[in-house]
Amino acid sequence: MKVLVISDILEEKHRELIRETAEKVGATLGFCENEDSVPKDFEDANIIYGQAKRLAATSRSLEWLCASFAGVDSFVKPGAFANENCILTNSAGAYGVGISEHIIAVSLMMMRRITEFYLETTAGEWKRPRPQKSLKDSSIVALGTGDIGCNFARRARAFEPSALYGVCRSGRCSEPAFDEVFPVGKLDEVLPKAELLVMSLPSTPETVGILSRERINLLPDGAYVVNVGRGTAIDEDAIADALESGKLAGAALDVFNTEPLPKESRLWHTKNLLITPHVAGNLTVAYTVQRNVEMFCEDLLNYAAGKPLLHRVDKSLGY
Amino acid sequence: MKVLVISDILEEKHRELIRETAEKVGATLGFCENEDSVPKDFEDANIIYGQAKRLAATSRSLEWLCASFAGVDSFVKPGAFANENCILTNSAGAYGVGISEHIIAVSLMMMRRITEFYLETTAGEWKRPRPQKSLKDSSIVALGTGDIGCNFARRARAFEPSALYGVCRSGRCSEPAFDEVFPVGKLDEVLPKAELLVMSLPSTPETVGILSRERINLLPDGAYVVNVGRGTAIDEDAIADALESGKLAGAALDVFNTEPLPKESRLWHTKNLLITPHVAGNLTVAYTVQRNVEMFCEDLLNYAAGKPLLHRVDKSLGY
Repeated sequence: MKVLVISDILEEKHRELIRETAEKVGATLGFCENEDSVPKDFEDANIIYGQAKRLAATSRSLEWLCASFAGVDSFVKPGAFANENCILTNSAGAYGVGISEHIIAVSLMMMRRITEFYLETTAGEWKRPRPQKSLKDSSIVALGTGDIGCNFARRARAFEPSALYGVCRSGRCSEPAFDEVFPVGKLDEVLPKAELLVMSLPSTPETVGILSRERINLLPDGAYVVNVGRGTAIDEDAIADALESGKLAGAALDVFNTEPLPKESRLWHTKNLLITPHVAGNLTVAYTVQRNVEMFCEDLLNYAAGKPLLHRVDKSLGY
Repeated sequence: MKVLVISDILEEKHRELIRETAEKVGATLGFCENEDSVPKDFEDANIIYGQAKRLAATSRSLEWLCASFAGVDSFVKPGAFANENCILTNSAGAYGVGISEHIIAVSLMMMRRITEFYLETTAGEWKRPRPQKSLKDSSIVALGTGDIGCNFARRARAFEPSALYGVCRSGRCSEPAFDEVFPVGKLDEVLPKAELLVMSLPSTPETVGILSRERINLLPDGAYVVNVGRGTAIDEDAIADALESGKLAGAALDVFNTEPLPKESRLWHTKNLLITPHVAGNLTVAYTVQRNVEMFCEDLLNYAAGKPLLHRVDKSLGY
């Protein structure tokens, strides 16, 4: 069994954990920084951890790809794997901590207008305070109640919102930080309660365009929207219109239909839009990379023992 | 008994609450937006709620000034009151919610480098992610464990820091969100644990210059500092040096020795310094103004009944 680890971010302690685990299961182990530097004798690896689009699409030896990221939409498309039976796992569960910090940060930046104050002081201007809003006593809706949505909910709860609702496919979520969790079929009834709407959805046929122009209009006037899932979930032209008209007080987008966001996109110039370049789920956060490696090692033991993998992606669902 | 309310921010519901309370105690009530628009027959008000520097210094009729803010350092100086026996209350307790949101926001902005990403995307640039840090597993010290420090601690706890310490004058604080609270005499032993140092101190003879050059050097390399109390607490030249040298990874200052921050201050150009123009404790936050007015009304009832006021400032301590 040949195991290849592709990453330019692991520290020695992470490599050591992988080495120990590979030794336990009797696997041959190779490391490289990216897909361009794969050692020749690992081109036919049976197991790969990391980002390996080329090898997935070409290698018939690949039996299991462990993605070091959570959003695997490009790997559930036809032709993504040369070996159609290749198992795909992802790292959903490692990013909730970091991404939920991003959500809290950008929500507060918008509601407290730190976006404006910061640009002003950076330009050497000390201006008078202006009205600010607060997470306290706000009504919050998390669209997506996976690892990200639940980590966000636990942190948001400490800010004493007036209400904190979740929305997910099934409507079932055991996270006690939510006041109530609704099935996505009730989304249109929940949106009018979303003074802050936080979206952390995978890209699937069901989520593409889910925040449509019509649904944006269901939000309360002056609402805020945060998206850290996939850009495909939002009608970008509609959200730009809603920001320009003042229907929305602000939006913070970390993900976009096309990334990097094209130079010609109107979003670059849209009022009250906080753009970050897909950095909410940065793998460099110590907890995230540690958990990421641990999850791979857990499943490497499972794989060697012929047990089901804990973090397997259902390719038909897309997550 | 003449009561004058000076504020340009109250809504009708707040005025109504004050009206009802004044009626209960049989007081004559006047409103104005600022000290320049005081109605003539209220120049000799016995009780003032709001910002009233001129009347405090000149009116011998003033018996009680209820400051609509928390930092009353300019009112405990000699000559601040024409009537030396004038009672001073403040609104400490109304600002913890809002200011703690500011602290969390700017801490995450620095640790997750959203400061950089935001300036870049505002300039139309989509750059690659860079290493980020997290509140999770960070060791945090709150210097000041009053309303602000405790509200911050309760919110910070939800982010799962490795440690969360408080430091205050007495070393006594019952807030359970802290792992431990130390007396200020142990500050030098605690600072080396402060990967994030959050300062929310009133300006008193004991706190002026408390974060000296020597103490900045006691912080761990790469630490972050947030100050939302009073600018006098920090040696501004020393913190600028520590930011320029890289000793500190970042600082977020909302308060300064001189405000507005003078044009010639080197802080405007200091590396990794996030400046906000004294907006952490903005009175416009719905909760803050509501609580502010409630606190005044509580004490108006106490005053009329000859009971001690709940929010009285000890002028010798300065808070």
